[in-house]
Amino acid sequence: MRVIEFDRFGDPSTVAHVAERPDPQAEPGKVLVRMAAMPINPADLLSIEGRYGVRPDLPAIPGFEGAGRVEAVGGGVEGFAEGDIVVPFGGSCWREKIAARPAALLKLPADTDIEQAAMLKANPATAEAMLTLVDLEAGDWVIQNAANSAVGQNLILAAHDSGFRTVNIVRRDGPVAMLEALGADAVLIDDGTDPERLAARVGEITGAARPRLAIDAIGGTATDGLAAALAESGLVVNYGLLSGEACRIDPFHLVFRDVRLRGFWLSHWFQAEGAGSAPEIYRRLAKRLASGALNTPVEARYSFEEISDALAHAARPGRSGKILVMPTSDGE
Amino acid sequence: MRVIEFDRFGDPSTVAHVAERPDPQAEPGKVLVRMAAMPINPADLLSIEGRYGVRPDLPAIPGFEGAGRVEAVGGGVEGFAEGDIVVPFGGSCWREKIAARPAALLKLPADTDIEQAAMLKANPATAEAMLTLVDLEAGDWVIQNAANSAVGQNLILAAHDSGFRTVNIVRRDGPVAMLEALGADAVLIDDGTDPERLAARVGEITGAARPRLAIDAIGGTATDGLAAALAESGLVVNYGLLSGEACRIDPFHLVFRDVRLRGFWLSHWFQAEGAGSAPEIYRRLAKRLASGALNTPVEARYSFEEISDALAHAARPGRSGKILVMPTSDGE
Repeated sequence: MRVIEFDRFGDPSTVAHVAERPDPQAEPGKVLVRMAAMPINPADLLSIEGRYGVRPDLPAIPGFEGAGRVEAVGGGVEGFAEGDIVVPFGGSCWREKIAARPAALLKLPADTDIEQAAMLKANPATAEAMLTLVDLEAGDWVIQNAANSAVGQNLILAAHDSGFRTVNIVRRDGPVAMLEALGADAVLIDDGTDPERLAARVGEITGAARPRLAIDAIGGTATDGLAAALAESGLVVNYGLLSGEACRIDPFHLVFRDVRLRGFWLSHWFQAEGAGSAPEIYRRLAKRLASGALNTPVEARYSFEEISDALAHAARPGRSGKILVMPTSDGE
Repeated sequence: MRVIEFDRFGDPSTVAHVAERPDPQAEPGKVLVRMAAMPINPADLLSIEGRYGVRPDLPAIPGFEGAGRVEAVGGGVEGFAEGDIVVPFGGSCWREKIAARPAALLKLPADTDIEQAAMLKANPATAEAMLTLVDLEAGDWVIQNAANSAVGQNLILAAHDSGFRTVNIVRRDGPVAMLEALGADAVLIDDGTDPERLAARVGEITGAARPRLAIDAIGGTATDGLAAALAESGLVVNYGLLSGEACRIDPFHLVFRDVRLRGFWLSHWFQAEGAGSAPEIYRRLAKRLASGALNTPVEARYSFEEISDALAHAARPGRSGKILVMPTSDGE
């Protein structure tokens, strides 16, 4: 079978290429899946660059998520049949076929859009899981930056479903109408350079009921803007590094206002909540997918042979949707 | 009575001056204390500059701590007698006399050094309290920067008493011998500019048992150095802003290593632990004071009339001890 592989860390569009590997089989206790679509996430780019939390042994097959159809079912496996749409929970997804244990597969209804299924595991779950890091009640405000990112859009949907209200920060006015259509309660255009100004604008929206949870995908002074906008003892959760800069928080907020900062990593969350809150969250996401509410835009599709172009496209700023990789150009 | 007062926020040595206020009385239920010595802490300077967590109504009397002797005991008060050495728990200490409720006074043994008593409430308690923010066991490592500060020295004493080991960061080699004499297990000279180099040096000292608690008085990239040196899921606690810069942490440590950042403020801690762990901590500190182990160096003493010189002196970097203010030049 064909896979995407990299032999050294570096610029993804340079080091990733197609390679051949032995075909996996539907051994007893396993399900053989033919992969159909895999998105390129920022985490994939970081991983190929060698900047991710875990550096794989080389050569490595990238790809944190994707979706496919069951091709064959090994002996002793129940609950799966040929043609089922499944999402593998493991990584190294950029390959034609995966043989996985049933417990490592999420099965989705037969009418699920397989491209949308491919984007279910990481970003929608990240958004849902981060909302559990503070004990929120219906009506509470949450604030996030990079609100037009994939996680950001999912966070609006997830918060809206739970009755939380969102203040959403974007850098330009292009995405405002789209975010409002998703259910954003407030959208602010802010460049992240003036924390006090942002805090004042958020105060005008929320009044005294300032947010107790802030979601930061940017770092740098943008983190401090969220800290300034939070209520006393609020929590800033960073999950991204769009600015390429360290998160900054003025000690004033840490010391005198008891604001706290932590990070979120889906891998840690899987380890901690795999048998805890994760299954319920994926049931909720599968429902949201089936209802059509969860619908991540796709900007372009590339075959394995076009992987360099796909990775270069995914690294470009200002995209309006995800880049998908498919084993063949028609996704079969 | 004479007090120190400021009518506007600004440079402390310019805006603070001596003023007259009515003498407080030993009313029923109150203890009248004649103050003897009050240190100038960084928090006092910040407060007069208007940069502290709470901005007082003006005109205001500064001074977060000090010690004095009981001058008279109001009706119905038990457990206090004329001449007792006491530390008031309230603020606004830079005055000749204070009338306080018994519950707001810490009484110390008659042979206590009153200057040392004056410096008991803030820095030693801050050091003790910060060590409770992570559940540490004997033998565990703690790391701190600005280790030769008043809090830093107290933290070495407190950690040593509890069996914790300390990695202490200073910027020059001058204080190394003094910190080792206090019980520092390791002292590193580091300028805070290279987090990865610091992390490597700490690893050489602690091996795999990296610190789970880091105490930061500096901010800026120094915070990131502590984050890099911590074990996974470790906590950085900031209590100071010596660099004048926002705390910085690389999202790598937050996201992939689950490092967390919060602040510490003694006022919050008093509110939360006043009836909890605080009394036990002050008993321990009183014992340490009596044993002579707790002995904060004093660099200079100034009378109320010399308050401008005292505040200018306290703001100078590179001091080797505290600046004390006394109602009269001989401290009586």
